[in-house]
Amino acid sequence: MRIGIVAPSTPILPDDAEAVRVLASLGYPDVELVFDPQCFAVHGHFAGEDGHRFAALVEMANRPDVDAVWFARGGYGACRIAEEAVAAMTDAARGKAFLGYSDQGNLLAALYRDGFDHVAHGPMVADIRRDGGDAAVLRALDWLVARDPAACEPGLEHGARHAAFNLMTLSMLLGTPLEPDLAGHVLIVEEVSEYLYAFDRALFHVANYLGPRGLAGLRLGRVSDIPENDRPFGLEAEDIAREWCARTGIPWLGRADIGHDAANKVVPFGLHRAG
Amino acid sequence: MRIGIVAPSTPILPDDAEAVRVLASLGYPDVELVFDPQCFAVHGHFAGEDGHRFAALVEMANRPDVDAVWFARGGYGACRIAEEAVAAMTDAARGKAFLGYSDQGNLLAALYRDGFDHVAHGPMVADIRRDGGDAAVLRALDWLVARDPAACEPGLEHGARHAAFNLMTLSMLLGTPLEPDLAGHVLIVEEVSEYLYAFDRALFHVANYLGPRGLAGLRLGRVSDIPENDRPFGLEAEDIAREWCARTGIPWLGRADIGHDAANKVVPFGLHRAG
Repeated sequence: MRIGIVAPSTPILPDDAEAVRVLASLGYPDVELVFDPQCFAVHGHFAGEDGHRFAALVEMANRPDVDAVWFARGGYGACRIAEEAVAAMTDAARGKAFLGYSDQGNLLAALYRDGFDHVAHGPMVADIRRDGGDAAVLRALDWLVARDPAACEPGLEHGARHAAFNLMTLSMLLGTPLEPDLAGHVLIVEEVSEYLYAFDRALFHVANYLGPRGLAGLRLGRVSDIPENDRPFGLEAEDIAREWCARTGIPWLGRADIGHDAANKVVPFGLHRAG
Repeated sequence: MRIGIVAPSTPILPDDAEAVRVLASLGYPDVELVFDPQCFAVHGHFAGEDGHRFAALVEMANRPDVDAVWFARGGYGACRIAEEAVAAMTDAARGKAFLGYSDQGNLLAALYRDGFDHVAHGPMVADIRRDGGDAAVLRALDWLVARDPAACEPGLEHGARHAAFNLMTLSMLLGTPLEPDLAGHVLIVEEVSEYLYAFDRALFHVANYLGPRGLAGLRLGRVSDIPENDRPFGLEAEDIAREWCARTGIPWLGRADIGHDAANKVVPFGLHRAG
């Protein structure tokens, strides 16, 4: 099996790629990781210019000798190429798994919208840098290689459709050509490095936008690295999520085991079949 | 003439209210400023609980002896009460001017959506704290009291419809019950204290959302206090705006004289009639 790695947003370091390669070779000696050199390109904020990131992503997705596409890292930039990249993907890309989170939610959304069947929110190559990052990387491989149910978020419901996003990333793609139809879905969101007022604002947006479109429910992953504001917001993240669910008629379904951390579990998009 | 002042988001200091009162008494001795005590209330992040801010806003809007409603300050919180507040306003509120910017864009949007005729983006009481803040406050009064054309953004076009927003505030209300119909409008946006990647992301969202809905064009106010990122974004704010206009078919109409600063000019929503 061959897993292709590209960086549609920001670059990774060659040392991190090497560490992940070593880890993969121990756990999955038959799996080959193919890092596109674009993963290490630097152009301002981005892992190469839009055209470079676009070309690397589309080429990897369409390669007949690559079985899955793993996103290297988040950051920012995928929304600049996602619509055109998915439109340029061929049938060769459709059978593959695509795995990532954070800013790669733009691509997960666009792929899922376009009917791709193996799109999942979960760890990326750059998670190797976290405390306990080995476990995150191996969990990603467990899912990419073997669809191991133990890699998946434990609260996924058999027979229910799911999707997972970084909240801000989702907020910023609603109403754009990247937005998938989330009607009937259990939506799981997580957030990192946002003030609680910004978290509240983004949930105001997402809940008011998606509530009338018939979500099956909302679950909240971890909300981490919240900056301290000059005065406390007055509500905690879970209170905020419960409130916006109540105000917009979205069933509140509790917490979820995803987040910007090494414990981040995999959430495959679409219908979940247990066992 | 009596101008009522409320704070639908965060509070102001009594000293700032007093400074504005003194300034107004010199420039407009016949104008009475009525500060609702809610302007000084503190509840966590907010100028009082949602119910308190809601009640003060609705009462001031509906008071028959108040001729205009001036928002005291931005911050965050107006989206939590805007829909219900506008729904609770009576015909007594409809003839009045409403003036503010930043987070108060939520109220400007909801009021304009509901057909209010004198909604404008412009300076607030709290601008008194800025360098040159006296001029900002007097400009606001010039518009509130006399609809002085000199207070208005100089590039407004006779016969064109306009609206102005803080970009992030607008982004977060699209698709919610606060969103006004901006088809055919010249949209003016400004931003403050956002990384350029966040500015790019918000413009991706707004341009992709509103482009297909037929904006007459986009103008860009000031983009100020941009935090330094660990690496430069690679594009300047105006380049970003031009690019998203080009990519989404929105006519780029150049810069505009609004922003989070004392020079911030007034942009009345709707059809502009010069002279």
